[in-house]
Amino acid sequence: MSRILLLGAGRSASSLLQYLLLHAPTEGWQLTVADVNPAHLVPVLAAHAAYARAVPFDIQQETQLPELVQQADIVISMLPALFHLPVAKACVAYGRHLVTASYVSEEIRGLDAAARAAGILILMECGLDPGLDHMSAMRALHDIRARGGKLTAFRSYCGGLLAPDSEGDNPWKYKFTWNPRNVVLAGQSTAKYLENGHLRFIPYQQLFARTTPVAVAGYGEFDGYANRDSLSYRTPYGLDDIPTMLRGTLRRAGYCAAWQAFVRLGLTDDSVHLSNPADMTWAALMESFLPAAHGAGSLAERTAAYLGLDPQGPEMQRLTWLEVFTKRPVGLADATPAQLLERLLTDKWQLQPTDHDMIVMHHTLDYELDGAPHRWESSLVVLGDDATHTAMAKTVGLPVAMAVRRLAAGQLGQRGVVIPTEASLYEPILEELAADYGIRFEEHEISLAAVESR
Amino acid sequence: MSRILLLGAGRSASSLLQYLLLHAPTEGWQLTVADVNPAHLVPVLAAHAAYARAVPFDIQQETQLPELVQQADIVISMLPALFHLPVAKACVAYGRHLVTASYVSEEIRGLDAAARAAGILILMECGLDPGLDHMSAMRALHDIRARGGKLTAFRSYCGGLLAPDSEGDNPWKYKFTWNPRNVVLAGQSTAKYLENGHLRFIPYQQLFARTTPVAVAGYGEFDGYANRDSLSYRTPYGLDDIPTMLRGTLRRAGYCAAWQAFVRLGLTDDSVHLSNPADMTWAALMESFLPAAHGAGSLAERTAAYLGLDPQGPEMQRLTWLEVFTKRPVGLADATPAQLLERLLTDKWQLQPTDHDMIVMHHTLDYELDGAPHRWESSLVVLGDDATHTAMAKTVGLPVAMAVRRLAAGQLGQRGVVIPTEASLYEPILEELAADYGIRFEEHEISLAAVESR
Repeated sequence: MSRILLLGAGRSASSLLQYLLLHAPTEGWQLTVADVNPAHLVPVLAAHAAYARAVPFDIQQETQLPELVQQADIVISMLPALFHLPVAKACVAYGRHLVTASYVSEEIRGLDAAARAAGILILMECGLDPGLDHMSAMRALHDIRARGGKLTAFRSYCGGLLAPDSEGDNPWKYKFTWNPRNVVLAGQSTAKYLENGHLRFIPYQQLFARTTPVAVAGYGEFDGYANRDSLSYRTPYGLDDIPTMLRGTLRRAGYCAAWQAFVRLGLTDDSVHLSNPADMTWAALMESFLPAAHGAGSLAERTAAYLGLDPQGPEMQRLTWLEVFTKRPVGLADATPAQLLERLLTDKWQLQPTDHDMIVMHHTLDYELDGAPHRWESSLVVLGDDATHTAMAKTVGLPVAMAVRRLAAGQLGQRGVVIPTEASLYEPILEELAADYGIRFEEHEISLAAVESR
Repeated sequence: MSRILLLGAGRSASSLLQYLLLHAPTEGWQLTVADVNPAHLVPVLAAHAAYARAVPFDIQQETQLPELVQQADIVISMLPALFHLPVAKACVAYGRHLVTASYVSEEIRGLDAAARAAGILILMECGLDPGLDHMSAMRALHDIRARGGKLTAFRSYCGGLLAPDSEGDNPWKYKFTWNPRNVVLAGQSTAKYLENGHLRFIPYQQLFARTTPVAVAGYGEFDGYANRDSLSYRTPYGLDDIPTMLRGTLRRAGYCAAWQAFVRLGLTDDSVHLSNPADMTWAALMESFLPAAHGAGSLAERTAAYLGLDPQGPEMQRLTWLEVFTKRPVGLADATPAQLLERLLTDKWQLQPTDHDMIVMHHTLDYELDGAPHRWESSLVVLGDDATHTAMAKTVGLPVAMAVRRLAAGQLGQRGVVIPTEASLYEPILEELAADYGIRFEEHEISLAAVESR
């Protein structure tokens, strides 16, 4: 019998929890689901009382975390990332395994030796991005290397988007399926990547202007913008000498050019409170960011002129759809520009109960084999079932749950702080995702001729 | 007898210390000069041993600060601003007065009631900017109000610059007379000000592009760029209803347009470490920030093309003078862009022993009197004596020292956390600065006709 503790059971953990409840009886698990607000778990767990219980959990209560960890064999943390460190420390202290879908922080990495000494696995980055990106990329890399290929370029993109059937009249073709604040503040530092052996930097102000078109068969066109740090996975992927390496985020084609208008106006800045009243209108706010007396015409026309945009073009259509040129009140007093934008978008980009989200992941790996250049492409598209079992919840939660299943069965021998780059970790997960959930990467080689004629 | 404690006696305190030593014998002061490295004070204090001593001081040693404060009647803090709070708390605890040249933080403001209860004055913002700006502006405001005038616009600029005789062939006409890091990171948030009753915001990316020309008779042309927050002094100045209010910083004409090139390229970002080697050249760094394969020609020509600048124009001349298109190594590994720029500029813009600095302050106050519009202008120019008694050291330190002199003589009745906006505080200081140091504002009215024909 394994005792499994799930910390944090919000909406993003829905598919993870469903998987755990499905397998608990046959695998002999006892589940404890600890959440700040466990009331919503009562109906979910009602039919599973023999092997699952919900407990209220407050990370601020110092005694609760060690007590819960001590009573478990494996801990899953779906808490906000900043809480992973105290959880990981408790897991080291009591010798319990930990699995999360979040990035390894420097502090967590510092627990590696202690985790090994305690004989535990701290498996991080085992969700979607990070998670499935590592697994699918490493499977391809291992295959190319096994055939004797030498990698020359690695490009990987992922995005949490809206399924085509839910785009409606929303010209952004985007709604929030993840933390709105993170979307508004996305990319606010210099992005770095490698291109033909040269370091490349993109300042924030250019990030949404220097995008790469990405096409996915059957799903159309996307914009890819560079992630903050494309370099840090060179070593974990064994690509220390690769000349080109870029990791990025996907939005629907056209999104980035329109978002760039907000960036240029200054509406994504989060560093200053504007001393504005809550009943300030969006028109007045937009006016405040234009240079004084900039041209003639309506506010929208002057905004277009200032930004050098076609007044009738797709960027201005997207801005207009958000009602930023209207008397709509901003609704928050003395807020930062980013807070005001987030408030507007949280309304405009709210996922409705009938909406379906969509996850898109796309890798392009260039390599040389027997002196000839090759390109391997892979793409994953996952659609949400509904507003609970979203594509995001499935792709973030299922890999975590599947790793926990192997760990509980004694099939994972890794110890210390680990990410899923080893075949023994990712192979069973990728297989189960494809076989049982249809979450499957479409992979193919492109001939050099096809690449060069693009 | 008053016991005066000076905390921090670095270069910026040179004129302050000189003033204290000059007046100590006649005013009956006993001076304690506490500095992290008191060795340099030995020759300075040698002739003043009867009333001045130096002591080593480390703010990290918990017992030292309360001991020193307890032994003083008045404390002057010239420490870095972040240390003012523990100093102020010690002053409240032991009932000692405190004078600084730094901004009132929220935490210091929170000590107001406790300071009043302890019967002490915490006089903040009593240097140059903040300090002389408040004093000179309030003197003018009081005068205009006494005559029945109503303020319609307040614009105030200040800059720490290079005296014309020290500009040499430096096309920026700028060297560091203050913290280089603060100069490189200047303005990195949205600036806010008021114009004709409307809030105006300038995002960082536009700050150095949206400048105002400021002319000072006899000293030529300057660029003024808006400070982060021009609104916060409306209430202290009694200008809650003023339609136009702008505070800004001065640089020599042409500086801001060239600096904007660094901002646009992304070289002032401090949020990401670039993974660069220390022997990376400046040319390679600049190349890394350009879009891949952007145009033809030399790096400088492609940079000019990308930024839309004349390759032979004044902005590119300034960049070229800094050697950013050469094989000069950046000299720091894995640094932020701002750190690399600061390192270069610390070399290129280093004040030499024979250089003179210059302080320029300029106010423009528009007001209505008897139904007619008026404008009052005032400007202050202070030149440094040498590399020790700089204009910066004089204008920051002397107002502090003069306030301390009045405080020791029992002439200041204010208690609590105060800035020098009252006539009883600023009048004697402005008079003594003018009479004894020639630090004098040139003030005049401009007729409306002259203003409108500009």
